Amino acid sequence: MSKKWDDVQLFLVNVYEMGRSDPRQIIFAVKSGLALALVSILIFFKEPLSYMSQYSIWAILTVIVVFEFSIGATLSKGFNRALGTFSAAILALGIAKLSVWWAKDWHEFVVVISIFIAGSISSYVKLYPSMKPYEYGFRVFMLTFTIVLVSGTSHFSRTAYSRFLLVIVGAVICLVVNMCIYPIWSGEDLHRLVVKNFRGVATSLEECVKSYLQNVEYERIPSKILVYQATDDPLYSGYRAAVQSTSQEDTLLGFAIWEPPHGRYKMFKYPWGQFVKVSGALRHCAFMVMAMHGCILSEIQAPPELRVMFRNEIHRVGTEGAKVLCELGNKLEKLEKLSPGFDLLEKVHEAAEELQMLIDEKSYHFVHSDHWAGARRQKYSEDHDHLHGLKDEETMDSPHHLKRCHTLNRHVTNVSMNPSCFGNSEEEQSHWPSRMSVLEDAILNEREVRTYESACALSLANFTSSLIEFVARLHNLLNSFQELSDKAKFAEPSVHVL
Amino acid sequence: MSKKWDDVQLFLVNVYEMGRSDPRQIIFAVKSGLALALVSILIFFKEPLSYMSQYSIWAILTVIVVFEFSIGATLSKGFNRALGTFSAAILALGIAKLSVWWAKDWHEFVVVISIFIAGSISSYVKLYPSMKPYEYGFRVFMLTFTIVLVSGTSHFSRTAYSRFLLVIVGAVICLVVNMCIYPIWSGEDLHRLVVKNFRGVATSLEECVKSYLQNVEYERIPSKILVYQATDDPLYSGYRAAVQSTSQEDTLLGFAIWEPPHGRYKMFKYPWGQFVKVSGALRHCAFMVMAMHGCILSEIQAPPELRVMFRNEIHRVGTEGAKVLCELGNKLEKLEKLSPGFDLLEKVHEAAEELQMLIDEKSYHFVHSDHWAGARRQKYSEDHDHLHGLKDEETMDSPHHLKRCHTLNRHVTNVSMNPSCFGNSEEEQSHWPSRMSVLEDAILNEREVRTYESACALSLANFTSSLIEFVARLHNLLNSFQELSDKAKFAEPSVHVL
Repeated sequence: MSKKWDDVQLFLVNVYEMGRSDPRQIIFAVKSGLALALVSILIFFKEPLSYMSQYSIWAILTVIVVFEFSIGATLSKGFNRALGTFSAAILALGIAKLSVWWAKDWHEFVVVISIFIAGSISSYVKLYPSMKPYEYGFRVFMLTFTIVLVSGTSHFSRTAYSRFLLVIVGAVICLVVNMCIYPIWSGEDLHRLVVKNFRGVATSLEECVKSYLQNVEYERIPSKILVYQATDDPLYSGYRAAVQSTSQEDTLLGFAIWEPPHGRYKMFKYPWGQFVKVSGALRHCAFMVMAMHGCILSEIQAPPELRVMFRNEIHRVGTEGAKVLCELGNKLEKLEKLSPGFDLLEKVHEAAEELQMLIDEKSYHFVHSDHWAGARRQKYSEDHDHLHGLKDEETMDSPHHLKRCHTLNRHVTNVSMNPSCFGNSEEEQSHWPSRMSVLEDAILNEREVRTYESACALSLANFTSSLIEFVARLHNLLNSFQELSDKAKFAEPSVHVL
Repeated sequence: MSKKWDDVQLFLVNVYEMGRSDPRQIIFAVKSGLALALVSILIFFKEPLSYMSQYSIWAILTVIVVFEFSIGATLSKGFNRALGTFSAAILALGIAKLSVWWAKDWHEFVVVISIFIAGSISSYVKLYPSMKPYEYGFRVFMLTFTIVLVSGTSHFSRTAYSRFLLVIVGAVICLVVNMCIYPIWSGEDLHRLVVKNFRGVATSLEECVKSYLQNVEYERIPSKILVYQATDDPLYSGYRAAVQSTSQEDTLLGFAIWEPPHGRYKMFKYPWGQFVKVSGALRHCAFMVMAMHGCILSEIQAPPELRVMFRNEIHRVGTEGAKVLCELGNKLEKLEKLSPGFDLLEKVHEAAEELQMLIDEKSYHFVHSDHWAGARRQKYSEDHDHLHGLKDEETMDSPHHLKRCHTLNRHVTNVSMNPSCFGNSEEEQSHWPSRMSVLEDAILNEREVRTYESACALSLANFTSSLIEFVARLHNLLNSFQELSDKAKFAEPSVHVL
């Protein structure tokens, strides 16, 4: 009992928090209550027109159904309602007149058959994907059509007429309350969502590079990540939100195109679709962040000494990449064009080229081959100074080969201590790719150890390739941003020094 | 005019095709028409109870709103409607009685205020995310509450009573028609969707490996891929559908949990949620297919001779991986457990290990370093026989370095011929990473050429790493499948030889 009470308290606190974090929700609720109250006042006043009050439900129903969070949604639903009501009323009146005139005795039969046919056809057509936005219109059509036909022969036109009038009354109240008191726009929400996605991906990228360079390893991968559910991990949630927002964007887009020019979006046919495209291009970049995160989640991990070798360059690319995303996000938020003559990508390209060159220079570290052991040891001593960042200095003095083995052993121990890091269940299945580690203190096949090591080294190549491909994809993002800024006539940038 | 007529014709053809490909949609439409016709017949019969017919709208409204495609959706909406109507009726009746009793003259005032308060609160609470499934219930609550209160003091209880009765009539008709005539289950749809995702990802994987080994390059990346929109490309659409199906799965899950045991799902509390989890684990694998596709989309491409070297091994891993996915998809479709004592992943692990070993053996090909030119040339001649699969035999005779340059030049020409392969717009931005290619016939910096080459070689490492990580993730997928097969008590497998 007290547990339930705690749940209720928690729920109330959460509900309160929701309103505090976004006061528009409270405003919407109050507006919605106001619209309902206005309608009921109107009905009380209209009492004298007694036959109207019988139909008062129509006005109330309209308010309840049409009053939506944003103006676009309200307009779109209102349009659906009007079109559905109007076409159904015309059609039903026609059929009713004809049925009375032609088939007097069978009149009810004709009515039921036509309801069946109209109901079936509109139920079928509304399933068609491109009819989705009008789904509600079809429902209204069926409702009006049926009501008008069954309401009895004598009052056909009175039903249709008073219904139409009251629907209009309800719709007008909705529109006036919704548009005149603190309007909430879907377009603005879409704009914010896209900006939020930019920031989320930028955060993910930064976190990802940071974690990678700090050799963060998941002791146990959160099972939610393994089944792609939401968690709090900022690295993961940033890009996940961007990848997941497609359906939300489509919904908002569907409403935004209904909205008249307003606020900062002073243009007819504002290119809201292009916002969704920019977000899509951002998603295309986010997939590379996802791939980098995959390297962190992977069982096969690059040894720390390799990461240290490329640390500065990787870090720079990550930082510059995140900067580009943040800058684009800011420009988008301010609806500002990019500064002409200033190449936003220059720095990140430079950084990526440097990283690429360093990789080329040091690429023999990715390779584990005894054929060149000599050449290697020589190069190794040259690179010695690069390794100063390494934390455990003692490994520095041991020969290269031993150090690698040390890394491997650490990893193997790790794995054998967490046999279930791929999930929570205790499985008998072989645990690949650390398969050999299952044998624990059996003699590790020399060949297998080497294979594993080379996979580890190549993991770094994988990470850097993804990072570089991320940078390459920024170009495409920039293009779609520029297309948007042209189409939507963004403001010229205020002069400022970066 | 004739264009419009063509559009209409096309629309009709498409609508017809929709029904042919999934006849359930036609069945739904007919059922829906039938339910409406039944309701109108009932209303005609009830004509004697004249005061009831005034409220006949309630039965019609209920049918139109509650009658949904699947049984789960119908039940969930019906429950919402019942709960909303019932609680609102009780509350409204209480307030109405009290307001007449306490504040006789101010009765209307009290009514309007309480409508305002109830409307605001329920509008607010329905915005709370976990209240989403009950959104419709809140609407019904507001509607009933307002209607009952404004319907005039004299008939409070008559309104509430007849409304409730008619809602029940409508709901019963809906349920009977929907459940007794060719029932359509959301659970089944969810099941099919997950199976379809398995097959889609398997196809994507196969296509991806095939394209990669055939050196398929996009002359011009479809701009839809760049902004992550749907296209027909089977490689892309397979994994995209799996990644995109989250919201559809959640919707179906929300309905499926309402459905009673039926057909092959004979169990109370059937673990539908676990289906969604399996699909999530599949998605986790699909991201690696996406990463591999990224390698094909990338500007930086591994030279064909390198791909030839690993062809057989990569191909085997791809085929075995796709087989595992297909097998899991089939088992899931048949609701069958995995064969005990048979390690489904054995072959794919073997194949991946072989690939990994080959990579280790040949890893010096990923490296472009003049320091070891000697050792390299020697190894190169040893590998000569591996290259027989290469198509243009003439390059074979040229020295290694020249061949690489040849590849690079081909690429550079490619790029300069398609300056806009990153989109359709003509941009002045530098075109990275083929930046140097913009200079066309300027002297290519020797260093830059080499860097570019090494990036190309590492691209193969990237592809294979992703492939191997894909194989590693299969383990997690298998685990969640087994969890599902235990929870849902799948059938023991029929004995068969693979």
